Amino acid sequence: MKSEILCVGTEILLGDIVNTNSQFISKELANLGIEVYHQSVVGDNPQRLLDELKLGFERSDIIITTGGLGPTQDDLTKETGAKFFNRELVLDEKSLKELKEHFNRMGKSYSDGNNIKQAYFPKGSTIFSNPYGTAPGCAIEDKGKILIVLPGPPRETKPMFKNYVIPLLKKYSNGIIKSKTLRIYGLGESSMAERVSSFIENSTNPTVAPYAKEEDIILRITARAAEEKEALSLIEPVEIGLRKILGVNVYGEDDVKMEEVLGRLLIDKGYTLSCAESCTGGLIASKLISYPGISKVFKEGIVAYSNEAKIKRLGVKKDTLDKYGAVSPEVAKEMAIGIAETSNTDIGISTTGIAGPDGGTPEKPIGLVYIGLYNRGEIKVKKLLHAGTRDMIRKRATMNALDWIRRQIL
Amino acid sequence: MKSEILCVGTEILLGDIVNTNSQFISKELANLGIEVYHQSVVGDNPQRLLDELKLGFERSDIIITTGGLGPTQDDLTKETGAKFFNRELVLDEKSLKELKEHFNRMGKSYSDGNNIKQAYFPKGSTIFSNPYGTAPGCAIEDKGKILIVLPGPPRETKPMFKNYVIPLLKKYSNGIIKSKTLRIYGLGESSMAERVSSFIENSTNPTVAPYAKEEDIILRITARAAEEKEALSLIEPVEIGLRKILGVNVYGEDDVKMEEVLGRLLIDKGYTLSCAESCTGGLIASKLISYPGISKVFKEGIVAYSNEAKIKRLGVKKDTLDKYGAVSPEVAKEMAIGIAETSNTDIGISTTGIAGPDGGTPEKPIGLVYIGLYNRGEIKVKKLLHAGTRDMIRKRATMNALDWIRRQIL
Repeated sequence: MKSEILCVGTEILLGDIVNTNSQFISKELANLGIEVYHQSVVGDNPQRLLDELKLGFERSDIIITTGGLGPTQDDLTKETGAKFFNRELVLDEKSLKELKEHFNRMGKSYSDGNNIKQAYFPKGSTIFSNPYGTAPGCAIEDKGKILIVLPGPPRETKPMFKNYVIPLLKKYSNGIIKSKTLRIYGLGESSMAERVSSFIENSTNPTVAPYAKEEDIILRITARAAEEKEALSLIEPVEIGLRKILGVNVYGEDDVKMEEVLGRLLIDKGYTLSCAESCTGGLIASKLISYPGISKVFKEGIVAYSNEAKIKRLGVKKDTLDKYGAVSPEVAKEMAIGIAETSNTDIGISTTGIAGPDGGTPEKPIGLVYIGLYNRGEIKVKKLLHAGTRDMIRKRATMNALDWIRRQIL
Repeated sequence: MKSEILCVGTEILLGDIVNTNSQFISKELANLGIEVYHQSVVGDNPQRLLDELKLGFERSDIIITTGGLGPTQDDLTKETGAKFFNRELVLDEKSLKELKEHFNRMGKSYSDGNNIKQAYFPKGSTIFSNPYGTAPGCAIEDKGKILIVLPGPPRETKPMFKNYVIPLLKKYSNGIIKSKTLRIYGLGESSMAERVSSFIENSTNPTVAPYAKEEDIILRITARAAEEKEALSLIEPVEIGLRKILGVNVYGEDDVKMEEVLGRLLIDKGYTLSCAESCTGGLIASKLISYPGISKVFKEGIVAYSNEAKIKRLGVKKDTLDKYGAVSPEVAKEMAIGIAETSNTDIGISTTGIAGPDGGTPEKPIGLVYIGLYNRGEIKVKKLLHAGTRDMIRKRATMNALDWIRRQIL
């Protein structure tokens, strides 16, 4: 089966948004062993959309669209799909009910005028309900051609793809492609690539490929086989070899996040944690709390942005602030000790730094961050110097702090 | 002039990389007033690439390609372009010299075998040198059709576009396109679209179009004119009309963020702020601190995730927690008052809620969040009920809290 992806939306053609849906869907189709030969984008224009459907179905068996399912007159993907397959649009009562419930839950008033459009589908469609928005998706299968229509916002597209489209397409896939991703922190891309170059070069089945992500590096092992079991047995020895070389730098697998790995480890090892943040300002706490199990071990966080807060909430000495300045290893230490002691936790982590864009000096440049780590009576400080924007500096310091705790309690 | 963008690379079709080149080029073309009606992606396959060129030049006057200029046999964009225009490939001595110099600078050895390919171009091309990589780009103009061939890595594509392609295309652009974006919070997409439907329907120049973003809604006003001044004067009356209808729901313009709008407003009006977060767990503090000027008004944040922290740090009464539970309007109130009083700030904002995925009950379902707002002696509580994942619920509550403070002090 050949497939293609067609994203609908003038905002993509204007360059207002990056088309991440195409990437997501392409990757999912590759995992299913369904080939993607084209990705296209057209604006909210019914004639050009219809032309793309005609062209796409000359080349391919499956077209997956995203976008154009909103409540406005501009949104015409279902209408154009219905025209292509020569079907009328019919009201789906279940979708209308869910739509009204959604409005109700959001405390907003439902109006038939615009919104009812979202409950109409080409006759005979399979409908995909959308718990995260007002636009359900659908699939139309006709004479060996399959049109799959999904909403545009990625937070709606992704769960709908996983819950409805994968089960639907599984019956059309030829063999499978299986990937395993190792997530790596603490090594640069090129130094990692050098260490594992014998695995990357000339890798065929499985292939091994490195990718630098915003916050870490991944190594993807991809095998092609008739059956999942066979693919997994191709991947296993390669994974073992890579882990042997990379050791503790591999912090997790696939889509796991550092905060989840750390949260589980804290729970397993019986450590409690609190944090005192200055430059990262809530990012460490916020990441930790995105892991649902964290309440067992995370007690509290203090965003001690002002010196006043550092003194009052954390017991940092005024003398230390005066003598060394807020961005100093001494203050990072006192913050970490202070939060652990006042929260009565095993571990206290602290950050203080200069995230920019102003405030840098030759001695304390933008990007300088001190991390303090108190761990059951022992205190350590680490100095970071990262280039980048305010957000990048804050994110990198956060990731580094989480990883440091992980390494300490491993 | 109509244009389209054609990105070449199997790695894009496999979903290994996000196609940011299409976004970058689209935005640049919009600024030049050159319309983009299609974006496409094909793999490293000469036949499909040739088909795309044929199709593209039936629809458009300009095709801009990226990718497929590397030294390997897979890289065939120039070769296919030459075939389409029926031209031979000829060696460009200047490019060859630059290529050898580039290898020299990088401390690598140049080998004629593979690399020389990168110095060959379709006869009669305008060549764009590439200081950031080994692949120069080129343009071929023939019978009113223009093919522009650029390298794939964004760090090479972008400077080449700015230095060579913009000057080349300026002579073909029909005036300019200018956009202004109004950012809206507190109205649903459809209810906003209804209020301003007279502006959206039949809008031509300027056009008015709504887009739902992850955290807010935008209305884009886009005008086409010969000169920037003329475009701005077309936009102005429409903007005034929209603002009159939408009022305080318009919180900002273009790429501004809610935290920046709020930060500036707090500074202007002389309010200080602190926050006490449970379910949002650091997100409010973290957003505020992403605005560099915030230190003037933001004192501190407490991530009071445990009941213990709510009692000890914020003075929430144990009785209140026992009687109403942590997720209750009463606790939200005491948290907001507690943080404002202990931090000595004008405003104290608090959140407590059930972000899921577990912990929901029929009385207190997942998605229930209470926000407390203490403002110079006055205390208010607001109840939210959002659908979605843990992250979405937390993000929405954060955005809602920031917007609520904005409305209170406006």
